[in-house]
Amino acid sequence: MPNRIKDFSKLCLHTITNKPWNLRQCVENYSAAGISGITVWRNVLKDQNLNEMRRLLDDSPMKTVSVARGGFFPSAEKKKRQEAIDDNLSAIHEASTLGAPILVLVPGSESRQPLEKSREQIMEGILKVLPQAHDANVKLAIEPLHPMYAGDRSAVNTLAQANQMAEQINSDFVGVAIDVYHLWWDSDLHGEIKRCGKNGNILAFHICDWNVPTLDFLNDRGLMGDGCINVPEIREWMEEAGFNGFNEVEIFSDKYWAINQNEYIGKIKNAYLNFS
Amino acid sequence: MPNRIKDFSKLCLHTITNKPWNLRQCVENYSAAGISGITVWRNVLKDQNLNEMRRLLDDSPMKTVSVARGGFFPSAEKKKRQEAIDDNLSAIHEASTLGAPILVLVPGSESRQPLEKSREQIMEGILKVLPQAHDANVKLAIEPLHPMYAGDRSAVNTLAQANQMAEQINSDFVGVAIDVYHLWWDSDLHGEIKRCGKNGNILAFHICDWNVPTLDFLNDRGLMGDGCINVPEIREWMEEAGFNGFNEVEIFSDKYWAINQNEYIGKIKNAYLNFS
Repeated sequence: MPNRIKDFSKLCLHTITNKPWNLRQCVENYSAAGISGITVWRNVLKDQNLNEMRRLLDDSPMKTVSVARGGFFPSAEKKKRQEAIDDNLSAIHEASTLGAPILVLVPGSESRQPLEKSREQIMEGILKVLPQAHDANVKLAIEPLHPMYAGDRSAVNTLAQANQMAEQINSDFVGVAIDVYHLWWDSDLHGEIKRCGKNGNILAFHICDWNVPTLDFLNDRGLMGDGCINVPEIREWMEEAGFNGFNEVEIFSDKYWAINQNEYIGKIKNAYLNFS
Repeated sequence: MPNRIKDFSKLCLHTITNKPWNLRQCVENYSAAGISGITVWRNVLKDQNLNEMRRLLDDSPMKTVSVARGGFFPSAEKKKRQEAIDDNLSAIHEASTLGAPILVLVPGSESRQPLEKSREQIMEGILKVLPQAHDANVKLAIEPLHPMYAGDRSAVNTLAQANQMAEQINSDFVGVAIDVYHLWWDSDLHGEIKRCGKNGNILAFHICDWNVPTLDFLNDRGLMGDGCINVPEIREWMEEAGFNGFNEVEIFSDKYWAINQNEYIGKIKNAYLNFS
């Protein structure tokens, strides 16, 4: 049996988990609830003064864990690939200004071309923004997404592929974000987590659960304990591989977005202690 | 560029593709449309006289390619595992009675236990019904399903896993069904098709397309050309691996089930020649 989680010192919430809240509401309510870390989604930065948001985060007891999300590099159109580069440079600037050490990358996929071609463009995109990431002291975390997103959101669908990409780039500023939702089904997961740790490429750990049945491709993720993922086992694999960072709760859920968000935080804390 | 398909001599339809039709309607309309093979889903056999259905099939110009589907072996409850065995024995009997040489197995998965445990129960289930399959001269085709079904429909989610299972069982009466919908995203697919062919384990080839975006977990499959799967390339890999059987169109689609089914057959024939 994996070790139990005893406190909230490594509990981080993604602001998208509480989509109804703006960044100020997230910071105030997370802090009051004793949450230790926050990952800021870029939607809550829209039309905000970044320096003011930085002060808000700095004044809270929480650590700013990462910004989500950059990426979406592939396109059959050169103009759109350039737009993606520009957008990633903005995201790096936002992460740096907020004091977030990591930018999470959703790789992207272009349905009009082979997955291999999309993976090449993901590599190209990362290499193009890498100098700015280095200068800004922001690490880029490649997040492999579930194969059900291969057509439109990510041509990187296994940890093996993300590991290979990170190893090929071989930079202190590129690593991998490991999300149980995307990778739990993979019989190579344990071995690939070891490999990721051995190569110093683990940057982040995202948790939630897989509902059975799942009713929506995007917004029907479960809270830990709701579904069939053995989160404690995967967390133990992460720790054995040397990961010592935050356990980040990232849940897109129409169901949970519809309930009282402070009540939801209570459910998350309970699920975190008992099913994570 | 893969070779082009020039005629309908290897075109097989799954009766579920035309869900609004009963078996008699499928046989009559497929025959009239020059379709060469039929895979019979068990829902159209319900409350039918099997010997009468056998005569219907024998009197048609089509070849009966397979029966779909058995499987669904895993359960946390022993009673349900036994019910699955019994149901698979019925399915073998139905295939034999209809003169179908193959029974397609959807492996199944139990969300209350680890995937490894479900895979063990799938192996056990297949081994239990194998003697009857042998006696009935019906081959069992293990069909790996997309990882998005790992929670409830299949703990076998890659061709590598299905290959391993078939090789371990090592029987002339157990092989693999390869469906582009479930496997197109896998960067190991080409190599695993070669392996499957080399070991004499390719039993069936199912085709359709992956819609972008996909709106439903079950019933939003695309017709070849609708989505992002390179069906001709995968078909060529199959042929290079020695496969010489039918190209079976298996499409679950609320959209296509809602249109005139004879008109739909015309669309399928067109898509088959141009995008398969």
